[in-house]
Amino acid sequence: MLDICLLGTGGMMPLPYRYLTSMMARVNGSAILIDAGEGTQMALRRKGWSPNPIDVICFTHYHADHISGLPGLLLSMGNAERTAPLMMVGPRGLERVVNSLRVIAPGLPFDIVFRELEESSETIAMPGMRDVFIDAFRVNHNVTCYGYSIRLVRAGRFDADAARALGIPVRFWNPLQKGSVITDGDVTYEPSMVMGPERRGLKVTYVTDSRPCASIVEAAEGSDLFICEGMYGEEDKIADARQKKHMLFREAAELADKAGVKELWLTHYSPSLLHPEDFADAARRVFPATVAAKDGRTVTLRFDGDGESGEQLTHVQE
Amino acid sequence: MLDICLLGTGGMMPLPYRYLTSMMARVNGSAILIDAGEGTQMALRRKGWSPNPIDVICFTHYHADHISGLPGLLLSMGNAERTAPLMMVGPRGLERVVNSLRVIAPGLPFDIVFRELEESSETIAMPGMRDVFIDAFRVNHNVTCYGYSIRLVRAGRFDADAARALGIPVRFWNPLQKGSVITDGDVTYEPSMVMGPERRGLKVTYVTDSRPCASIVEAAEGSDLFICEGMYGEEDKIADARQKKHMLFREAAELADKAGVKELWLTHYSPSLLHPEDFADAARRVFPATVAAKDGRTVTLRFDGDGESGEQLTHVQE
Repeated sequence: MLDICLLGTGGMMPLPYRYLTSMMARVNGSAILIDAGEGTQMALRRKGWSPNPIDVICFTHYHADHISGLPGLLLSMGNAERTAPLMMVGPRGLERVVNSLRVIAPGLPFDIVFRELEESSETIAMPGMRDVFIDAFRVNHNVTCYGYSIRLVRAGRFDADAARALGIPVRFWNPLQKGSVITDGDVTYEPSMVMGPERRGLKVTYVTDSRPCASIVEAAEGSDLFICEGMYGEEDKIADARQKKHMLFREAAELADKAGVKELWLTHYSPSLLHPEDFADAARRVFPATVAAKDGRTVTLRFDGDGESGEQLTHVQE
Repeated sequence: MLDICLLGTGGMMPLPYRYLTSMMARVNGSAILIDAGEGTQMALRRKGWSPNPIDVICFTHYHADHISGLPGLLLSMGNAERTAPLMMVGPRGLERVVNSLRVIAPGLPFDIVFRELEESSETIAMPGMRDVFIDAFRVNHNVTCYGYSIRLVRAGRFDADAARALGIPVRFWNPLQKGSVITDGDVTYEPSMVMGPERRGLKVTYVTDSRPCASIVEAAEGSDLFICEGMYGEEDKIADARQKKHMLFREAAELADKAGVKELWLTHYSPSLLHPEDFADAARRVFPATVAAKDGRTVTLRFDGDGESGEQLTHVQE
């Protein structure tokens, strides 16, 4: 189960009632935050979500609208007496930028572990979890910028008949299910002996600050949810979009279509775009399952139900 | 005329509907901002006030709740194509702190002029104005921290009878009124020859993050408006207040009383203080003209009316 909240949907500058783009994913009692623009801690509080479970913060890049809320967020996490280390992921320069900002947030009661991205794509295992991964992939902006996919993998089904047929003692079934290799005297049991093929998991992809590019289509392929920037709704903003390396709604919808995602949420709107919904229909003609998201939009994604068809997209809130 | 807006009233951490403490004063087409916590640019937009006229930003100190909104504010001012230099005033370390934060706000189209405070009190002339002054005075916090008074001085009345009696040509009356010394052939006319004694001006004093201390009473003396922190409403928080170098509502009211100010606005509330108004009556028993201010509270202060009594406190908004 994966809870996703789009804390803010503003690009470049916040509006009085639109926070800057930030996304939070809660999974297995932990959480991942992607980007932390000015006001992120306020958006979190407004949503009623705690910053406490955030164990990883990923940055797409270091323009202020994506990181200016970091000092306040770190202080709030420190005030909540966090002591567990916090991992940060981002393009080269991460440690320098964060340490510069920490001039106003010194003396935190927890360590920060930096993971600077070097390759065009990298996969990071969520600390302490075997089934959650963060894929970072380079996109096309005017500075080095990455998109992220959060993936929950789902093990195959346990085959009790096979376990019985192999004479595996029942006390080993549970550890085998959890992926442990068991040695019992001379005999070794491996998970692959009793587990069916990996089942469909969950995947959410987040991209802001990019022109459309192949790496996005590749990374977003088959996502349950694709959150993508739509800086401009109007077609006549294409020259601006090209120059500033952003996208139109329609271009985001084309990416969603090519990547075969289940749903697209647009975000990172220009401050000049006061009513994103006005331009959503044009995007829906390209990709019907397009939502012009508003701040606070939330969804709980669940694994395919046994015997049920499709994901259950429950508790969608705006 | 002096427009004052308390953009935010939060201390330490913002709440979803309470921005961090920041005050803006508009005067003669220019503006002074004191402190710029996270969300200041949003509070400004919510208020409908433009950041464009801000020519001076004063910082009380560099805890994040007082400066974390600076990078976003600077970028907004840059996006609005400001080119005039911006003066910043604050305790020692100002340039280092601001330049650290500017890692995410490089390349502004205007210069920043730093004025680092060294003395226990200093007076700064508002750039380009002869009648507006900023008094900085050291207060008592756990780091070096300053309060500020903004003063509008008001020249004396022009004495036309005296000017006529001295035979001063009428064409010189206006420049003399504006403070110029006029030399006409062998004769020199000075403003003091035709101007009455300086009249009562306007004064607003702003103090956050301090224990009560004598420098506050001295600096706030006779202020039309005294904006002062009230971190805690409850009397039983006195130990916290002493340890963290903050004030109770009652202590702020005592300062207001001693300084003989006209009105006190409390601000910089602890995030634990959800309903400041609940504790305002206790402060009003000490100093009746106490207001537990809310975000966005605004007043227009005017000079004493000719023949009218007292200031006209008009357009008070919450």
